[in-house]
Amino acid sequence: MALAQPTRTGLHPDRALPSGTVERGIAREILGHTRDLPIVSMHGHVPVALLEADQPFGDPASLLVVPDHYLVRMLLSQGVAPESLGLHRPDGTTAAVDPREVWRAFASRWHLFRGTPTRFWLEHVFAETLGVEWRLSADNADRVFDDISARLAEPDFLPLALLDRWGIEVLATTDAADADLSSHHRLAERGYTDRIVPTFRPDAVLRLDRTDWADSLALLGQRTGSEIGGYADFVAALEQRRWAFVEAGARATDHGHASADTTPLDGSEAERIFAAALRGEVTAPQADAFAAHMLFEMARMSTHDGLVMQLHPGVLRDHDPRTQESWGSDIGYDIPVSTEFTRSLRPLLNAFGHHPDFTLVLFTVDETTYSRELAPLAGVYPAVRLGAPWWFLDSPDGMRRFREAAVDTAGFFNTAGFVDDTRAFLSIPARHDLARRMDAGHLARLVAEHRLELDEAVETAVALAHDLPRAVYPTLPRGASSA
Amino acid sequence: MALAQPTRTGLHPDRALPSGTVERGIAREILGHTRDLPIVSMHGHVPVALLEADQPFGDPASLLVVPDHYLVRMLLSQGVAPESLGLHRPDGTTAAVDPREVWRAFASRWHLFRGTPTRFWLEHVFAETLGVEWRLSADNADRVFDDISARLAEPDFLPLALLDRWGIEVLATTDAADADLSSHHRLAERGYTDRIVPTFRPDAVLRLDRTDWADSLALLGQRTGSEIGGYADFVAALEQRRWAFVEAGARATDHGHASADTTPLDGSEAERIFAAALRGEVTAPQADAFAAHMLFEMARMSTHDGLVMQLHPGVLRDHDPRTQESWGSDIGYDIPVSTEFTRSLRPLLNAFGHHPDFTLVLFTVDETTYSRELAPLAGVYPAVRLGAPWWFLDSPDGMRRFREAAVDTAGFFNTAGFVDDTRAFLSIPARHDLARRMDAGHLARLVAEHRLELDEAVETAVALAHDLPRAVYPTLPRGASSA
Amino acid sequence: MALAQPTRTGLHPDRALPSGTVERGIAREILGHTRDLPIVSMHGHVPVALLEADQPFGDPASLLVVPDHYLVRMLLSQGVAPESLGLHRPDGTTAAVDPREVWRAFASRWHLFRGTPTRFWLEHVFAETLGVEWRLSADNADRVFDDISARLAEPDFLPLALLDRWGIEVLATTDAADADLSSHHRLAERGYTDRIVPTFRPDAVLRLDRTDWADSLALLGQRTGSEIGGYADFVAALEQRRWAFVEAGARATDHGHASADTTPLDGSEAERIFAAALRGEVTAPQADAFAAHMLFEMARMSTHDGLVMQLHPGVLRDHDPRTQESWGSDIGYDIPVSTEFTRSLRPLLNAFGHHPDFTLVLFTVDETTYSRELAPLAGVYPAVRLGAPWWFLDSPDGMRRFREAAVDTAGFFNTAGFVDDTRAFLSIPARHDLARRMDAGHLARLVAEHRLELDEAVETAVALAHDLPRAVYPTLPRGASSA
Repeated sequence: MALAQPTRTGLHPDRALPSGTVERGIAREILGHTRDLPIVSMHGHVPVALLEADQPFGDPASLLVVPDHYLVRMLLSQGVAPESLGLHRPDGTTAAVDPREVWRAFASRWHLFRGTPTRFWLEHVFAETLGVEWRLSADNADRVFDDISARLAEPDFLPLALLDRWGIEVLATTDAADADLSSHHRLAERGYTDRIVPTFRPDAVLRLDRTDWADSLALLGQRTGSEIGGYADFVAALEQRRWAFVEAGARATDHGHASADTTPLDGSEAERIFAAALRGEVTAPQADAFAAHMLFEMARMSTHDGLVMQLHPGVLRDHDPRTQESWGSDIGYDIPVSTEFTRSLRPLLNAFGHHPDFTLVLFTVDETTYSRELAPLAGVYPAVRLGAPWWFLDSPDGMRRFREAAVDTAGFFNTAGFVDDTRAFLSIPARHDLARRMDAGHLARLVAEHRLELDEAVETAVALAHDLPRAVYPTLPRGASSA
Repeated sequence: MALAQPTRTGLHPDRALPSGTVERGIAREILGHTRDLPIVSMHGHVPVALLEADQPFGDPASLLVVPDHYLVRMLLSQGVAPESLGLHRPDGTTAAVDPREVWRAFASRWHLFRGTPTRFWLEHVFAETLGVEWRLSADNADRVFDDISARLAEPDFLPLALLDRWGIEVLATTDAADADLSSHHRLAERGYTDRIVPTFRPDAVLRLDRTDWADSLALLGQRTGSEIGGYADFVAALEQRRWAFVEAGARATDHGHASADTTPLDGSEAERIFAAALRGEVTAPQADAFAAHMLFEMARMSTHDGLVMQLHPGVLRDHDPRTQESWGSDIGYDIPVSTEFTRSLRPLLNAFGHHPDFTLVLFTVDETTYSRELAPLAGVYPAVRLGAPWWFLDSPDGMRRFREAAVDTAGFFNTAGFVDDTRAFLSIPARHDLARRMDAGHLARLVAEHRLELDEAVETAVALAHDLPRAVYPTLPRGASSA
Repeated sequence: MALAQPTRTGLHPDRALPSGTVERGIAREILGHTRDLPIVSMHGHVPVALLEADQPFGDPASLLVVPDHYLVRMLLSQGVAPESLGLHRPDGTTAAVDPREVWRAFASRWHLFRGTPTRFWLEHVFAETLGVEWRLSADNADRVFDDISARLAEPDFLPLALLDRWGIEVLATTDAADADLSSHHRLAERGYTDRIVPTFRPDAVLRLDRTDWADSLALLGQRTGSEIGGYADFVAALEQRRWAFVEAGARATDHGHASADTTPLDGSEAERIFAAALRGEVTAPQADAFAAHMLFEMARMSTHDGLVMQLHPGVLRDHDPRTQESWGSDIGYDIPVSTEFTRSLRPLLNAFGHHPDFTLVLFTVDETTYSRELAPLAGVYPAVRLGAPWWFLDSPDGMRRFREAAVDTAGFFNTAGFVDDTRAFLSIPARHDLARRMDAGHLARLVAEHRLELDEAVETAVALAHDLPRAVYPTLPRGASSA
C-alpha cells in the first residue's frame, strides 16, 4: 500500500458560485459569457520595471510571499517574525533568509488562510498559472517549492508573455508624480501603447507633513526642470506632470488621502501654508487643509486634461511606527478608519460634479458608506462612479455586500467595474476571475428571484467585466496640452 | 416570418421570494395570507389635492417620471439634463418639453434601473395597474406611451377609484403646519373620514435659519389668526394647529431634522433664540439648538394630544445648491449622513419614553444604527417603535437587512409596519406588495431553519402587513382639545 | 374528541442550519463533529455564589425571567411594569409579586420573542434541560410553571451536577477587583481547580467619576490590607489583586469602558487626577483620560502576569436614570454607541501589540467595526484576537454577519472562540449549541461554494468550538508572582 499522499486539489468549475441549484445553474450560464473576456485592469500596483525588464521571476517565496501584504500580515498576526520572511528593510537591505525557509514558514500555515480571499486567489494561481494542484502543507512545502521553481524557469513564463496568455487588454500601473515614465515610453515603442499605461499618484507631494515631502518635492522639481519656490510653481509643476502622464497614455490619477475633505483654500492661504512647508514649519492641521485643497485642485485639473480622478480615503497608514521604521510601509499595518463622504465631497461636487469632462471614481474601505453616502452620491451626480470593493473588501462576501448595498440606489451603470489593485502580478487573473464569479452569482440571484431576466443579467455581467471600465477610463487624446 | 417583437414581460407570481425550493414554498404560503390584505399607508407624500380633485391623470411622463425623485436622480446621474425631463422650476415655470420626449429619454435608459427597487415597482405598476407588459425600451417607448395614455383616459382610472381598487384602508398625506386642511375636510364630507388623513409636518417653521422661515411663520400666524410675536405665541400656535390636525383625523406628526438631537433649552433661552430669528439674526448653532429643543417640545405635545411622533433624521438636503436654485428640492440631491440616536434621543426618552400616551416611530437612512442603536432602544423603551426601512433602504435587500439586523433585539412587535413614503401615487400598491413579499421571505427562512413555526410566521406576517400599523397609529378621539 | 391542546414543540435536529439541501447536508456533517464537544466558557456572568452553594434553583420566574435582561427588556418594551416582574431594587428589596404571576406575564407574551435569540435559547432550555415541550402561551403558563417547578426540585438538578451533565470543561465567572475569591478557593478544594475560574473586572475602581467609586476603592483597600492614599498605592493594589486572581486560577481580565481610548498619561498627571478623585473633585474629562490611561496600564500588567485582556467598549450604561434609580443596572437599559478602535488602540498596540506574553481579545457591539477596524487589527498584530459576537449581536444573523465580515481579513485563527457572556445559567449550553450550529452553517457554505474542503471545515469547526478558546486563554502558572 502506498504512503499517504498530500491531498491533491483542483479548481472546481463552480467555485464561488451560489450553492442553490437554481441560482448555480443561472450563475454558470452568466459566467459562461464573461469568464473568457479580456481583462481590463485600470487600478493596480504592479511595478512597470517588472514589465519592461520582462525577466524570469525569482524563487516562489520572493515572487508570491514577500511582496504580498495580504500574506505577510496574516503570518505576522500569528507571531511569525518579519526577519524570518525575508522582508526588505527601508535601508535597502533584506533579512538574510533562505527562500525555501520562507516558503516553509508560509506553507506550514496554509490553514490560516481558510475563508480568506488570499486562499482563493492562491489556489487559482497554483492550479491555473503554476500547474500546482497539491494542497499546501508543511509536508509538501519543498516539493511545491521545487515544482514552482521549475515552472518559473520555463521560457514562456515571462511577464509580457503572461500578459498575452491572460488576455490583459489594458494594465494600469501606479506611478509617483516625479516618475520619469521612461519604462512606459520604451514599452510603448515595443507595441504596448495604450496597453500598459501609467497612473498619476501625487500623494507624496500633496501631504506637506510627510517626512519624505521635501525629498519628493525636490524630485518633482528635477523632473519638471523647474525650481519649486512657491505654491504657483508647485501647481504649474503638477499640471506639467499630469500632461506628461497623459502623453504617456495615462487615463487616471489616484489619491490615497486620510480624509475625503475637499474644501478649497483661497489662493493666498494655500500659498502661505506651502511657504511654511518649504520652511519646514507646517502644522498637521495646515497639512490637512492643504491636502483637502489639493483634492479640489486635482479635480479642477481633471476638467482640463481629462484624467479620471480616483479617490480612496480613510486608511491610517503605518499604524505601528516601530514596524515601519524597521520594515517600511505596505506590509500590512495600514488600518481603516471611519470615513465621511457626503459633507467632505460637497465642495468638489458642487464645483465639478456636473462637468462633462470630469469623472470621479470613489473607493472606500468603510463599507458603512455604501448605502448611506456613496450610492446616493453616484446615483445623482453625473461625474461620480463607484469603484469596486477594494483592499480589505475584495473578498467573496465583501463583493456581495457591495452589490447588495450599492446597486439598489446607484444601479449597475454608475459603477466602474472591477479593479484588482494588486502588487502581486500573478494574482491578477485570479482576482478578476473571482469578481466575475461573484457578479454572476449576484445577477443569478436577481434572475432566480424574478427581479431581472436572464438576457439582461448576461448583458450586465459583460458590462461589469469589460465594457464599463473601458467606458469610465477612456483613452485620452495625445497632444491636447498644447491645444 | 414576423419582425422581431419587443420582449413581452409579465409579473412572476414568485417575484422577490427566496429562490431556494424549501424557502420559496413556505414564503408562497405565508404570502397567500397577506397579499390581499387592505393597505394601511401611514406615511406618504401623495398630495391631498390630487385626491380631492379626483381628476384623470396627465400624460405618462408627468405622472410617472417627473414627480418621482428615484427616477429623476438616476437619469440625472447618467448625464440627462434636467431641462429635458420637464422638471418644474421653483418659480413655478416648467421646462418646455414634449412629454413624449421625456418618456423616450426614460424608456431608452430602462437598463439603468436593473437591480433597483424602481425597476421592481414600475414593472408592477405597468403590469398590474396599467396593463402594459412590454419590457420598456427605446423601440417601444412610443407604443407604451400611447398604451398608458389610453389607460389613463379610461373613466375608472381616477385617484379615488384606485383607492378602492387597491384596497387602501387608510392613506396619510403629509401637510405643512399651516395647511388649511380644507381638502381633508371636504374629503371627510364625501365619506373619507379616517381614511384619508393629514400628517402634521412642521419642519419649515422649526428650522429657524431656513430661507423660507419667515414666510412659513407668517403663514402659520395667518392660519391661527394670531400674531406670532415671540416664543410663547409660537408654541401656542403649534399646539393649536396640532389640535386642528387631530380634528381633521391626523394620527401623527412627521419630523425630518438634520440630527436626532433632542436636548431641551430652558424657556428663556428658547425665547431669546426665537427673538433673534424674528430679527433675522439667528446663527446656525442657535438654529440647531432650537430644532433639538422643538423635538423635545413636540414629544411633550404628543403626550397631550396623542399624535404619534415620527422622526427621520440624518439627511443633508439639497447637496447641490445650484441645482436647488434652478430646479428646487426633492429631485434627488438629498444625501444621507452618519446619524447618532443613543445620546441624541436620551433627553426625550428620559422624559417621555415611558409615557403611556406617547409613541415615537424612528426612521433612518443610516442602517448602521439598526443593530447598534435603534433596535436596542426600541427593545426596551415602551414608547419607541421602529419605522420601516425607508427612502434609500426600501429595496429588497434593504428590507432584508433591516429584518436581519433589527428583529434579533427588537422583535417584530416593536416595529411599526411598512410605510410606502411615496410621492408617486401609482407606486403605492407596488411598494406594499414588495414589502409583503420580503417579509414572507424573511419569515420563510426562519421557518425553514426551524427557528419559527409556520402558524407563527403567518400570524406575524399579517401583523406586519396590517395589524401593527393599525395599532401603532390609532385613530384619536375628536373634541379632546376642549376637554 | 379531546379538547384542543396547546401546541407541542420539539427541537428540530437541523434548527439554525442553512435551509438549502446541499448546505444543510454539509452543515449536519460538520455539526456532528462539534455538537458534543466539551464547553469552554471563558467569558460569562454566572455568580460564583450560585455554583458554590449548589442549591436547588428557585421557581421558574426567578430562575428564568428576573435575572435575564434579554427577557426583561423585551417585556418592558411592551409596557409591562417593572413592579409586576418582581425585579430587585437597588436597596435590596424586591417588588412583591407572586412568581406565578410573573411567569404568566411572560408566557402570555411569548410571541414577542419570535425571531430573537432569546426564543431560540429558551426553546433549547425548555426541551433539553427542563423537559418542557409545549409552546409557551397564556393557556399553558400554569402547567409549564408546575412542570418546571417539579423539574427544579429533582435531586439531580443542582448547578454543579448540570456542569457535569452539560460537559462544561471550564467556566469563567466575572468578579470585581475587590472580590475575596473565597468561593473560588473553596470550589478548588472541592476539585474545581482550573474548571471554575474567576475573571478580574476592575471597572468600578478604574472609572473615577462613578458614584460608587469611593466605596469600591475602600473595598479594594480593605482587600489588599493597604491604605490607598495615592496613585502609586492604587497601582500596587491592582497588581496585587491581579496576582491573587492568577493564584485563584484566573486567566483573563475584563474591561467594559465607554471608549476604547488607551492613551497613557505621564505618571505625574495620573497622580494628579487620582488625587483629585480622592478629594471628590474629578471632572468627567479627567475621568475619561484616566480610564484610557488605566487600559494602557492593564495591558502593561498583563505582560507581567499573563492575564489575557478582554475589552468591550462602546455601551452607554443606564440610559434611563430614573429606571436605574428605581431598579438598578443590568435590566436592559444599556445602549450601544458608535465605537472607534483604530486610533484608540494605537498607543496600547504600539507598546504591547508584539509582546509575546500579551493577548488582547476585542469585543464590540458596533458591528461596523468588524471589517473596517477589528479584522484588520487582528489580522496583523500578533497580540490581538477577536472575541465572539456578543450581547446584542449573539443572534443567528449576528453571528453570521460576524463570520462573513471578519474572517476575510482576520481568518478563523485570529478569533478567540465563542463566549456565552450570560447571566442566565441555564442558557449556557443553548448558547454554545447555537454558536456551533451557526459555525457549521457558515463553514458549510464555504464548502458548498468550493471555497474550502470538508475536512478543513471540520477541523476549523472543532478549533472554533473548543481548541481556540483553550489556546487563547491558557492556564497560568501559580506562584509566578514571587518569582
